[in-house]
Amino acid sequence: MNLTLSEGQFNLVYNSFSFVIASMGAALIFFLLVRNRVAPRHRMAITLSTLVVAIALYHYLRIFDSWSAAFTYDGTQYVQDGEPFNEGYRYVDWLLTVPLLLAELVVVLKLTKDKTRSLLVRLTVAAIAMILLGWPGEVSDPDSTARAVWFIASMIPFLYILYVLFGELGKSLERQSATVRKLVDGLRYIVLVTWSIYPLAYLAPTFIDDEATAEVARQVGYAIGDVVAKPLFGLLVLGIAMAKSREDGYAPALDDAHDDAELVRS
Amino acid sequence: MNLTLSEGQFNLVYNSFSFVIASMGAALIFFLLVRNRVAPRHRMAITLSTLVVAIALYHYLRIFDSWSAAFTYDGTQYVQDGEPFNEGYRYVDWLLTVPLLLAELVVVLKLTKDKTRSLLVRLTVAAIAMILLGWPGEVSDPDSTARAVWFIASMIPFLYILYVLFGELGKSLERQSATVRKLVDGLRYIVLVTWSIYPLAYLAPTFIDDEATAEVARQVGYAIGDVVAKPLFGLLVLGIAMAKSREDGYAPALDDAHDDAELVRS
Repeated sequence: MNLTLSEGQFNLVYNSFSFVIASMGAALIFFLLVRNRVAPRHRMAITLSTLVVAIALYHYLRIFDSWSAAFTYDGTQYVQDGEPFNEGYRYVDWLLTVPLLLAELVVVLKLTKDKTRSLLVRLTVAAIAMILLGWPGEVSDPDSTARAVWFIASMIPFLYILYVLFGELGKSLERQSATVRKLVDGLRYIVLVTWSIYPLAYLAPTFIDDEATAEVARQVGYAIGDVVAKPLFGLLVLGIAMAKSREDGYAPALDDAHDDAELVRS
Repeated sequence: MNLTLSEGQFNLVYNSFSFVIASMGAALIFFLLVRNRVAPRHRMAITLSTLVVAIALYHYLRIFDSWSAAFTYDGTQYVQDGEPFNEGYRYVDWLLTVPLLLAELVVVLKLTKDKTRSLLVRLTVAAIAMILLGWPGEVSDPDSTARAVWFIASMIPFLYILYVLFGELGKSLERQSATVRKLVDGLRYIVLVTWSIYPLAYLAPTFIDDEATAEVARQVGYAIGDVVAKPLFGLLVLGIAMAKSREDGYAPALDDAHDDAELVRS
C-alpha cells in the first residue's frame, strides 16, 4: 500500500496521536496522585486504571513513531514509502488493556467473591476473543470477504460483553446504593457509546472509497476511542470508588493520618 | 512557506522553547514536592497544576524538536526546508491545559457543589470553543480575511471567560476570607494581562510586515504566554491553597514530623 496523504491529513492523524500521548501521560500522573482520596479497599480499581493508561501511553509513543517513520514529506504531501506503519501495537495494547478495563468496573463494585471471579473470567475470555478475531480482518484487504467475516466473528464476543454488562451486571447492581447505581448506569452507557467507535473505525476502509480519507478516519477514530475508553472511563470508575469510599465512612480529610497508619502496618 | 531566519532570530526562538522546557520541568518537580504543604482537601488544585505543567513539558519537547527539524543552517542563516513546523502541538496543548487551568482556579475556591459544577462546565466549553475557533485562523494566510474572522470568532468565548472570572466569580468571592479574596483578585488580573499575550502573538503576522520578524514575535510571544499562564499561575493558585489550608487550621509544621516518622519506619 503506497498511501499519499495531504499535509492536513497526515497532521490530523499525527496530532491526534500526540494528543493521546499527552492525555495518557496526564491521566497516569493524575491516577497516581489521587490514589489516597480513595479508601484502601477500593484502590484496586484505581490501580487498574493506572496500568491501563500506562500501557496505552507506551503504545501510543510507539504508534506515533511508527506513523512518522512510515511517511516522507516530499515538499507538498506525505508519501508512505518508509517501513510500513505497525498496526500491531493497537492489538497488543487492547489485548492487555481491555481485560483490565473490564476488571476495573467489576472490581470497583465489590460483589461477592464468586460473582467477581465468574464475571472476570468470562469478560476476560470474551475480550481476548474479540481482539484476536478482529486482527486477521484488520490486516486483510479493505474490500475482501475476509474482513467482513472476521468483523462479524469479532462482534459476537463484543455483543456478549455488552450482554453481561447490561443483563447480568444489572441484577448485581440492586445491592448498591442509589448513588453508585446511578454512576454505574451512566458508565455502562458510556461503554456502549464509546465502544461503538471501534467497529465504526474498523469499518472505515470498507465504507469510505477514498483510501486516504478512510485511513485518516480509521486512525483518528481509534485515537478518540482510546481516549474516551481509557482515561475518561478511568475517571468515572474513580468517581464510583470515591462514592463508595464516602459511603464506607472514609474521610479524605483524614487522609494523612490514614496513610501513616497504613505505612506503619505495611 | 520557505522562511529564512538569521542566526539570531532562529536562536531566539530555539532558546525560548528550551527556556519553557526547563521552566515546565522545574515546575513539575516543584508541584510534586510541595503537595504536602497543602491540606488534603485543597490538593486537587495542586494536582491540576501538576498535570498542566506536565502536559506543557511534553508539548514543548515536541515543539522544540519540530522547530529544529524544520530549519537547516546553511553556514550563515537558517532556511526552513525540512518538514513543516507543527503548529498543531500548541493547540492540542491548549485544548488540554486551558480547561485544567480554569478548573484549578474554580476548584481552589471550594464553592458550593452546584456553583463549582456550573462554572466548570461553562468555562470548559468556552475554553474549547476559543481554541477550536482560533485554529483555522492560525493556519490560514497572514493577511487573509479568514484569519481576522476566526480571530474575532475566537475572541467571543475569550471575552465570555473573562466575564465569568470577573463578573460571576466576583460574587462568589464574598464568602472568602480577606486574604484569599486579595490573592484571587490578584490572580484574576494576572489572567487578564497574561492571556492578552496570546491574541497579540496571534496577530503578529497580521501587523508585522517582515515575515521572519513576525514569526519570531509569534513564537516567542506564545512561549512567554505559556510560562506565565502555567507555572506562574500555578504558583499563585498554590498560594491560595496554602492560605486556605492555614485558615482551616492545617499545620504544615506537623507534616514534616509525619514525613520523618514515615521514613524511619520504611
